[in-house]
Amino acid sequence: MLRLFRPIFFVCGVLALIMTGLLLAPMIYGYLIGDPEYRAFLESAIISLLFGILLIFWGRERRFRLTSRQLYLLTSMSWLQLSFVGALPLMLTDHPLTLSEAVFEAVSGITTTGSTVISGINTLPPSILLWRSLLQWVGGLGVIGMAVTILPFLRVGGMRLFQTESSDWSEKSLPRFHEMAHRLLFIYVMITLACGLCYWVAGMSPFDAVNHAMTTVSTGGYATDDASMGRFSDSILWIAVVFMMIGGMPFMLYIRFLSQRRLSVLADQQAKGFILIVLFLVAILTFEQVVMDGEPFLRTLTHAAFNIVSIITTTGYASADYTLWGEFSIGLFFIATFIGGCSGSTSGGMKVFRFQLSYQFLSDQMHKLVHPRSITSIRYNGKPIPDDIVASAVAFSFLFFIVLAATTLILTALGVDFITAFTGAITALTNVGPGLGDTIGPAGNFHTLPDTAKWLLSLAMILGRLELLTVMVLLSPVFWRG
Amino acid sequence: MLRLFRPIFFVCGVLALIMTGLLLAPMIYGYLIGDPEYRAFLESAIISLLFGILLIFWGRERRFRLTSRQLYLLTSMSWLQLSFVGALPLMLTDHPLTLSEAVFEAVSGITTTGSTVISGINTLPPSILLWRSLLQWVGGLGVIGMAVTILPFLRVGGMRLFQTESSDWSEKSLPRFHEMAHRLLFIYVMITLACGLCYWVAGMSPFDAVNHAMTTVSTGGYATDDASMGRFSDSILWIAVVFMMIGGMPFMLYIRFLSQRRLSVLADQQAKGFILIVLFLVAILTFEQVVMDGEPFLRTLTHAAFNIVSIITTTGYASADYTLWGEFSIGLFFIATFIGGCSGSTSGGMKVFRFQLSYQFLSDQMHKLVHPRSITSIRYNGKPIPDDIVASAVAFSFLFFIVLAATTLILTALGVDFITAFTGAITALTNVGPGLGDTIGPAGNFHTLPDTAKWLLSLAMILGRLELLTVMVLLSPVFWRG
Repeated sequence: MLRLFRPIFFVCGVLALIMTGLLLAPMIYGYLIGDPEYRAFLESAIISLLFGILLIFWGRERRFRLTSRQLYLLTSMSWLQLSFVGALPLMLTDHPLTLSEAVFEAVSGITTTGSTVISGINTLPPSILLWRSLLQWVGGLGVIGMAVTILPFLRVGGMRLFQTESSDWSEKSLPRFHEMAHRLLFIYVMITLACGLCYWVAGMSPFDAVNHAMTTVSTGGYATDDASMGRFSDSILWIAVVFMMIGGMPFMLYIRFLSQRRLSVLADQQAKGFILIVLFLVAILTFEQVVMDGEPFLRTLTHAAFNIVSIITTTGYASADYTLWGEFSIGLFFIATFIGGCSGSTSGGMKVFRFQLSYQFLSDQMHKLVHPRSITSIRYNGKPIPDDIVASAVAFSFLFFIVLAATTLILTALGVDFITAFTGAITALTNVGPGLGDTIGPAGNFHTLPDTAKWLLSLAMILGRLELLTVMVLLSPVFWRG
Repeated sequence: MLRLFRPIFFVCGVLALIMTGLLLAPMIYGYLIGDPEYRAFLESAIISLLFGILLIFWGRERRFRLTSRQLYLLTSMSWLQLSFVGALPLMLTDHPLTLSEAVFEAVSGITTTGSTVISGINTLPPSILLWRSLLQWVGGLGVIGMAVTILPFLRVGGMRLFQTESSDWSEKSLPRFHEMAHRLLFIYVMITLACGLCYWVAGMSPFDAVNHAMTTVSTGGYATDDASMGRFSDSILWIAVVFMMIGGMPFMLYIRFLSQRRLSVLADQQAKGFILIVLFLVAILTFEQVVMDGEPFLRTLTHAAFNIVSIITTTGYASADYTLWGEFSIGLFFIATFIGGCSGSTSGGMKVFRFQLSYQFLSDQMHKLVHPRSITSIRYNGKPIPDDIVASAVAFSFLFFIVLAATTLILTALGVDFITAFTGAITALTNVGPGLGDTIGPAGNFHTLPDTAKWLLSLAMILGRLELLTVMVLLSPVFWRG
C-alpha cells in the first residue's frame, strides 16, 4: 500500500512547496501595505512548508513512474490537498472562517467555481482578497495542465479524444510534458497580464485589475465586492467578455500558436461550436429582452453578453440579478449552466465537445433508423472517432444526472429548500458559481446553508472539476482489488 | 407519395372504426341514465365512422406490407388521429372545451399522462368521465401493443433489446402478431376486471370502480373528482398500488404466463429492478417522514407507497399534496418523475431498462479505467447486448434532456413561470401528470396555461409516449429523401 502512495506523496509534497511560494505573495503584499493579516499567511506558509517537506521525505523514490491507478489517486488527492492548504489562511485570520466555511471557500476557489460563503466581501482585508483570486488563478492553471497531460490518458468521459501522442504516461514522456507545461505557463501568464492591463486602462484600480484578471482568465468568478462586476463600466464588462471567452477555449490552440504561429480557432470544431452556442444564446436573450420587454438595445446587449458568457464559461460573475429579467431569462440561464466551455480550458460544465459528440451520435442513429444497413462513423475535427470514446462521452451525461439527483436529494434531506438544493448541486457540479432562488442566486451567497451542505457541495465541486469518473472510480471495489 | 401513405391511411381508417365502436359505450351509457350529453357521442361516432370509411377507401390495397419508414409514419399519425377523434366529443358537449383544451385533454388521455385542463371534474356529465377513462384505457393498450410489436423493429432508444424473433415486419409475421394481440387484449381486460372488482368490493361505487380500474391499469391517472384518489379509504389506495405496479411491469411477462403457466417476475431483470427501485424510494420517504418529521408510521407508509408508485408508474393520481411534505419529499418526487416504469408496460418515463443499461455501461467503463486491456460485455437478462443497443439506450437520455431543455425554454418564452415550465415539460415528456408549483402541482391543473403552451405540451406528451426518436426522425431531412 505504501508503494502505491509513495509517488503520490512526493507530488503532493511538491505541490505543497508551490503553495508555500504562493502564500508568500499575499503575505508580502499585506506586510507592505500594513495589513496585519499577513501573519495568517506567514503561519500558513510555515505549516505548508513543513507539510511539503514531510511528504517529499516520505515519498522520495529512486525511479519515478506512475501507473494509471496512481494517476487517479494523484488527481483526486492533489486537489484535496490544494483545497486544505488553501483553506489554512482563511482559518488563521483575525476574523476566521469555520473549518467547513474555509474549506468550501478554498474548494470553490481552487475549482474555479466562485461560490462564496462570505458577505461583505469589500470589507475583507486586501491580502485575503488576493489569496482568493490567487487560488482561482492556480486552480485554472491546474485544470488545464491536468486536461492536457493526465486526463487524456485516463479513460474518463471521452477525454481520450484529446490524447495527443504516446499512450504511456511514464518517465520517457516527461520531457514533452515539461516543454508543454512551460509553454502553458507562459501563455497563461501572458493572457492574465493582458487582461489585467486592459482592466487597468479601462478604469479599474491596480488592485482590482490584478484580482479580476486572475479570476477572469481562470473563469473563476471571485470578485472584490458583493456586487460582483455590477459596479464597473460597460467597457470593463466587454473586456471581461473577451477574456472569459479566451479562458473558456482549448488552451492547446494557444500552445500550438507558440510553435506554429497560426491561431486557427475556427478550424477547431469545439472552439467553433462554443462560439456559435454563445452567439446564439446572447442573440435570443437580447432579442427577447428588446423585442418582447422593450429594453434599450445596447445596454441589454452588454448585460446579456456579459452574464451569458459568465455563466456558460462557468465564471459566475454577475453584472445584475438576471433572475429578475423574467421567466425566459431564468430558463435560459438555467440551461446555460449545464453547457460549460471547451475541454482543455479553465471552464467547467458538461463541455461543448460532449454535446457535439452526442449530437453527432444521434444524427448517426437517426440516419440508421431510415437506412439500417448503412455504415457510418462519427468524425471529430476531421478524424473518425472510435465508438468507445463516443460512448464514454455520452455516458458522462448519464453519470452527471445521477450524481446531480443524489446531491439534490441529500441536500433536501438536510433541510435545504428544493430550488436551492437543485440549482446549488448543478452550479457546484458544473463549477459555475451562482444558483437560482433567493439564497444562492446571483444576488445571494452560500453562507446560510447548513455545514453538512457546505461539505457536500465542496465534494460536488471537486467531482465536477475532475470530470466525475476520475473521483468515482476510487469508490469502486475493483479499483482497490489486486 | 400517395403509395407511401396508402397503408397508413388504411390502418388509421381501421383505428377510426375502432374509435367509433368505443364512442358507442359512453353514448349508450349516457342514453340509459338520461344524460343529455349522449348526443355529443352520437355525433362524434358518426364523424369518426365517415372519416374511417373514407380513409379505408383511400388506403385499400391488394398487398399489405409496411416498410420501416411507413412504420414510423404510421406510429406518429395513428396517435395524432386517435387524439383528434378523442377530442371530438369534448368539443361537441353542451359545455364544450376549446380546440386546444379538448386536444390537450384527449392527448393527455390517450398518452395515459393524466394532466387535465378541467377543474370541477365531479360536476362533469358521467358520459364524459367515462370517455376520459376509456381514452386512457385504450391508450394503455395501444402503447403496450406498440412496444411489443412495432418499436422493437425500429431502432429507437435501445428498444431493439426487446426484439423477439424475426427482424422483418411483413405479412408473414402477421399471424404471430395476431396471436400476441389476442393474448394481450385478453390479459389486459382480465387485469382491468380484477382491478375494478377489487375497487368495488373495497367500497367504490360501480361507476367509480369502472373508471378508476381503467385509469389504474393503464397508469393513466384520470380520476372522477378534483381530489384525485384523496377521498378513498386506505384499502382502496393499496389496491391501486398493486394494480399500478402490475400496469408498470412488462406485459410480456403476463403474455408468457398464458402459454407457460409460470409467472417469473423476479427472473426478469427489468421487473426486478423496477420493484427494487420502488421499495427503496418508498422506504426512504417513509423513513424520512416518520423518523425526522414524527409522522405516524402506517398512515405515512400508505400515502408514501401510493404517491411514489403513482408517480414512478407515471399514473399521476395523488392521495394528498405531497409537495407539502417538506423539501426532501419534493426532491424525491421530482426525481421519481424521470424514472418511469418498465418498457413494454403502460408506463412512460425514461424506463427502468435504460437506467440499468446505463449503469452497467458505467460499471463496465469503471472496470476498464483500472484494467484498460480487459474485454467485457454488457449482459441483460443473461444475454450479451450489442454495443449499439447500449449506445442507443444511453443516447435516449441525452435526447430526452435536449428536448426537455427546448420545451422548458419555449414555455418560459410564452410567459409560463420557470418552475411550471420546467416541471410541466418533464411531466408531459414522461407522461406522469402533475408537475410542481401552485399551477400544475398535484393540487392544481393545466387550465390557466396559455393555449400555445397547451399545444406544445400536447406535442411533448406524444413525443414522450412514442420514445422521442420515433417522432423526431420524421423531422430529419434524411427521412424524406429518396
